[in-house]
Amino acid sequence: MHIRLINPNTTASMTAKIGEAAARVAAAGTQTSACNPLAGPVSIESHFDEAISAIGVLEEIRRGETENIDAYIIACFGDPGLLAARELSPAPVIGIAEAAFHLATLISTRFSIVTTLGRTCIIAEHLLQSYGFAHHCRRVRAAEIPVLDLEDDGACALDRIIEECRRARDEDGVGAIVLGCGGMADLTAQIRDAVGLPIVEGVTAAVKLAESLVSLGLQTSKHGDLAFPRPKQFTGHFDYLSA
Amino acid sequence: MHIRLINPNTTASMTAKIGEAAARVAAAGTQTSACNPLAGPVSIESHFDEAISAIGVLEEIRRGETENIDAYIIACFGDPGLLAARELSPAPVIGIAEAAFHLATLISTRFSIVTTLGRTCIIAEHLLQSYGFAHHCRRVRAAEIPVLDLEDDGACALDRIIEECRRARDEDGVGAIVLGCGGMADLTAQIRDAVGLPIVEGVTAAVKLAESLVSLGLQTSKHGDLAFPRPKQFTGHFDYLSA
Amino acid sequence: MHIRLINPNTTASMTAKIGEAAARVAAAGTQTSACNPLAGPVSIESHFDEAISAIGVLEEIRRGETENIDAYIIACFGDPGLLAARELSPAPVIGIAEAAFHLATLISTRFSIVTTLGRTCIIAEHLLQSYGFAHHCRRVRAAEIPVLDLEDDGACALDRIIEECRRARDEDGVGAIVLGCGGMADLTAQIRDAVGLPIVEGVTAAVKLAESLVSLGLQTSKHGDLAFPRPKQFTGHFDYLSA
Amino acid sequence: MHIRLINPNTTASMTAKIGEAAARVAAAGTQTSACNPLAGPVSIESHFDEAISAIGVLEEIRRGETENIDAYIIACFGDPGLLAARELSPAPVIGIAEAAFHLATLISTRFSIVTTLGRTCIIAEHLLQSYGFAHHCRRVRAAEIPVLDLEDDGACALDRIIEECRRARDEDGVGAIVLGCGGMADLTAQIRDAVGLPIVEGVTAAVKLAESLVSLGLQTSKHGDLAFPRPKQFTGHFDYLSA
Amino acid sequence: MHIRLINPNTTASMTAKIGEAAARVAAAGTQTSACNPLAGPVSIESHFDEAISAIGVLEEIRRGETENIDAYIIACFGDPGLLAARELSPAPVIGIAEAAFHLATLISTRFSIVTTLGRTCIIAEHLLQSYGFAHHCRRVRAAEIPVLDLEDDGACALDRIIEECRRARDEDGVGAIVLGCGGMADLTAQIRDAVGLPIVEGVTAAVKLAESLVSLGLQTSKHGDLAFPRPKQFTGHFDYLSA
Amino acid sequence: MHIRLINPNTTASMTAKIGEAAARVAAAGTQTSACNPLAGPVSIESHFDEAISAIGVLEEIRRGETENIDAYIIACFGDPGLLAARELSPAPVIGIAEAAFHLATLISTRFSIVTTLGRTCIIAEHLLQSYGFAHHCRRVRAAEIPVLDLEDDGACALDRIIEECRRARDEDGVGAIVLGCGGMADLTAQIRDAVGLPIVEGVTAAVKLAESLVSLGLQTSKHGDLAFPRPKQFTGHFDYLSA
Repeated sequence: MHIRLINPNTTASMTAKIGEAAARVAAAGTQTSACNPLAGPVSIESHFDEAISAIGVLEEIRRGETENIDAYIIACFGDPGLLAARELSPAPVIGIAEAAFHLATLISTRFSIVTTLGRTCIIAEHLLQSYGFAHHCRRVRAAEIPVLDLEDDGACALDRIIEECRRARDEDGVGAIVLGCGGMADLTAQIRDAVGLPIVEGVTAAVKLAESLVSLGLQTSKHGDLAFPRPKQFTGHFDYLSA
Repeated sequence: MHIRLINPNTTASMTAKIGEAAARVAAAGTQTSACNPLAGPVSIESHFDEAISAIGVLEEIRRGETENIDAYIIACFGDPGLLAARELSPAPVIGIAEAAFHLATLISTRFSIVTTLGRTCIIAEHLLQSYGFAHHCRRVRAAEIPVLDLEDDGACALDRIIEECRRARDEDGVGAIVLGCGGMADLTAQIRDAVGLPIVEGVTAAVKLAESLVSLGLQTSKHGDLAFPRPKQFTGHFDYLSA
Repeated sequence: MHIRLINPNTTASMTAKIGEAAARVAAAGTQTSACNPLAGPVSIESHFDEAISAIGVLEEIRRGETENIDAYIIACFGDPGLLAARELSPAPVIGIAEAAFHLATLISTRFSIVTTLGRTCIIAEHLLQSYGFAHHCRRVRAAEIPVLDLEDDGACALDRIIEECRRARDEDGVGAIVLGCGGMADLTAQIRDAVGLPIVEGVTAAVKLAESLVSLGLQTSKHGDLAFPRPKQFTGHFDYLSA
Repeated sequence: MHIRLINPNTTASMTAKIGEAAARVAAAGTQTSACNPLAGPVSIESHFDEAISAIGVLEEIRRGETENIDAYIIACFGDPGLLAARELSPAPVIGIAEAAFHLATLISTRFSIVTTLGRTCIIAEHLLQSYGFAHHCRRVRAAEIPVLDLEDDGACALDRIIEECRRARDEDGVGAIVLGCGGMADLTAQIRDAVGLPIVEGVTAAVKLAESLVSLGLQTSKHGDLAFPRPKQFTGHFDYLSA
Repeated sequence: MHIRLINPNTTASMTAKIGEAAARVAAAGTQTSACNPLAGPVSIESHFDEAISAIGVLEEIRRGETENIDAYIIACFGDPGLLAARELSPAPVIGIAEAAFHLATLISTRFSIVTTLGRTCIIAEHLLQSYGFAHHCRRVRAAEIPVLDLEDDGACALDRIIEECRRARDEDGVGAIVLGCGGMADLTAQIRDAVGLPIVEGVTAAVKLAESLVSLGLQTSKHGDLAFPRPKQFTGHFDYLSA
Repeated sequence: MHIRLINPNTTASMTAKIGEAAARVAAAGTQTSACNPLAGPVSIESHFDEAISAIGVLEEIRRGETENIDAYIIACFGDPGLLAARELSPAPVIGIAEAAFHLATLISTRFSIVTTLGRTCIIAEHLLQSYGFAHHCRRVRAAEIPVLDLEDDGACALDRIIEECRRARDEDGVGAIVLGCGGMADLTAQIRDAVGLPIVEGVTAAVKLAESLVSLGLQTSKHGDLAFPRPKQFTGHFDYLSA
């Protein structure tokens, strides 16, 4: 089984980090590989960044379809391009936000999210509502760290995340915390040890859900809503997408 | 006041039709102009088409920002790229789906939607839920017409739409019908006459909402969730977006 | 186009203020006129006041029907008598609360409301739930000002409203604020300048929505739920309503 | 204990019927009396009729306050004027729609409503949503009988109600049926016998809930939302309401 | 009419207290009796305690069915075994949590709950959501008192409950408070006097709802969801349940 | 890793079937074992059966805690005793209904459920609402097969299930179907082949989710709502539970 992790931003160090996090938890028979688009934002911190990054995600899905990929993971907490990606392949596609939400509800009755910047909280809120998890989440919190600060060596970002997670633990009445950024994938153990609550991280959660679906032979339904896109013409620099 | 209508697909005849529909209802002092991206799908009938088209929408917003545009309309019923577009400009941006939903609730207690293909009904369902209008809508119906059939001369598409609208009228217990495709903008009067219910069409609805916001001096809030995207680097062929 | 603003309370100075606010934003071809019932409460600060005021609203609608009115606005933030008013006329009827909610969602992802008295917050909460905007509103706040204090010359009421709006801005995580009383229609600009957020005011919002519907030829649906009331006998001092 | 039933319409035969239904189920120590306003609609079949009837309801509450009434029942299925009535008295006020919904959920997991005219179904839908019972109700059905047909001797109305109740039983997957009109209060036993399901009727349900609250010493809270209306001036023919 | 109160825990002093509270509010013709299972937890403070206690509740229902009981009350705030109990008898079965919620919404627009331990708040939250009362409840609060402390003579528990109720009154914007434990049934008057808000207590509320249903001849529907369980074999020490 | 499957009913052939289904999909390093309580119903087709079966489930969890079990699965579609079971162990506990819902939303936008008897549909409805999946599920359907008919050799049950699944496919607008009974675990492939849609079966889904949580080191949170039950006395034949 080959799971392809797509980091929707173009920061190679984050792609590597995501790939390592995935490899660490992959089952014996699972091959993982991580990639990022050549073109796109170096970090995703707005709806705009997300929309641009979706193109790269879809490109990577298309490329994956030529490589016998068994499942894809979209490794950005806004799950950019998720439903479009599902249309492009019968292979399962999983977003790290949805993955984290699903697993968090299996080990706690209520959770909080700790994400990077306050301005991206609304993205998590929209996903919670759309997926059906709004009443399981007590609060979406921001540590107010730009995403790329997670790539710096200093422990400052980690400290701020731990501080915010402790506030969630003490004030929100929750049993678990969801980390709201793919770039936090290497910090899970440290945060868990410092906070003392189960910490659900999306990249690793998504790897296990992808393995789950593949090993059960469950693929994205091609009956109805997520069928392959109808073949059609694309114009201009998107001409290569024409059928 | 200059309102720019962005047809997210690249079919010029549909852009012209949308522009004409807008011009017909624009107020005396309102200038309208319609455009479509150079690159993108000729029609939007899937989440994939929508994701690709969002890039074109955002390009057109960026172009508009150099032309003193006062408000933008995204003239595809899935409102592709809406929140991202709002980040790019202080000028209001309105989707034709949301516009139609808003006005429909002002003239009826319950409405149904008649859209093109069954596979796009899910897009309308998601928007209804996200915007808060789910309980106002009785049913999302498809006439099972590919979008570009609306560009053909024959009356076949119109007949099928009218037939489905009549079913909505007779079976759904609704007071109004929302047309679920920008390409139906020129058919509103004929459908209304044939069905005998108020027919809410999104392009024209959005023009009036755009005029409303502009004349009240209400612009997209730049405080918080919809602030301008943080300046950052974009790589590859998106490099031109770098700040 | 003639838009009639109905102030549901009987305080003439507030009616004048509402009329002026409407006239200021009306389009070139729009005539606006403001009225209030002869009989009713001088201010509306309870469900009781609201129920009594609804009679006056309906009387004014009935009167308007003899005067070729094209659209009506119910200029009290509880939208008293809204659905009943819609039954009485094919002309659109718009409440200022719903108008403000609709426009606020077009320029921000989340808003708060600042209203007069704490005891009327529940009215706004019920409207948010019924209209479908509950999840767009973070908080309903009261400045604890009796409505008629808004008619006094002193700036005390304005100061308190600004103070509460600033709290909403700083504590609620919102992009816009909705003013929760028709009597605040003249304060919008001052509040906006002092608070630095888009301020959505219902009277002006409703004027633009009314113009929108009229210019699109959209009238209240007479098919089903909002059809004219069935003719019947009314007894006692309501005998004049008998058909 | 004296429970006052207020029939919001002015049809004396219906008031008598409601009074008899109440008396039949009242406890040993409970005195019941039924009244209707002098002025108002002879039946309530629209939002307009409802708004007018609310005045009569409130008048009757005010009159009741001079007569040591212990609890009030608003005996029309739209619960007209309910929250306003609660403000006017510390004595509990109960609507027959809410009463029926409450009891129906205690004896079944899901119920359907059978009401008079299709155009009033929307009123029941709004109440279900506002009260929180929307997911307990499978369907709101209309027998398409004008309210005053219930006052005729012929069995035609009864037949149609039974027919619609049987459809609910056979098609809706429900355990109980709620009768959606105060004028059906005398038909409960016949309907139950013909349909074979528990039939929940609002007038009788409300009497028992009123007895329940009074015997527990529970009165409408005067802390906050339902406090007595602030004293103020009313103008015109409502001048008698001035404090 | 004979109402049987089932205390799901096995603490006889609490059973007695519940029985006395019920007897105090029972109508003239109502006989009440209280019992508790022989086997089960001495208090219920977790989902586990609840699951075990449900067996005792069901045993007591089965025993009651041989004694001509007219209605049952499950006197623990989690309503353990409620739907199962309803299947076992045509006689109405009422939980004290649902009873309190129903009556609280009749006298206030919003309420808060004050329960014993923080860990049981989630049980109340789940019930509010399932029953449909989530939006009527502002907050679920815990006084952090183990249930059996309510059986001690000292006033310490009472003081803490009053303190928490006062916080609810001052901070939550509510009109009434629901007591979240059957063991508080004897404290209602003292709490009400100390807090100055209507206090809704579930045991007493349930007695009146039971009387209401019985006197109306309304029994648990045996059509569909709550029909008697299908006869079948039970194995092991549950063999006595076999049909 | 050792996953223990608990069949909450006492029918050994169904336990064996569940065990085989689990073993078939377990990963290389995963040991699975299936058990059922000694005491309890031979099938679960009502809330009553469910409540009784929960005791057996909890007994089996307690027994498992002495055997170094890494995760538990409750293999009945009502997820009986789920939250109580989570309190008893730090090891994850997963219900087959929730497991199926989670995976179904990852491969389709909307699904339907096909379960055994109509009377148990309400159990699925309650779970969908509580877990947050209500809007993902179009319809809960029953094949009207008693659970133990699934243990018979004849193909009659399979035929009826396939027939109902085909109706779901053709009428409900869904992309996947969830099988609503643990006893269908051996039929998944045949149903999938006959229906042509992805079929999500809960036993197999739960095994993969259990593996996922264990391999990520995620255990049930013992902070707050799902902490171990407070030690206390149990009386009568539950005395062995006393701490």
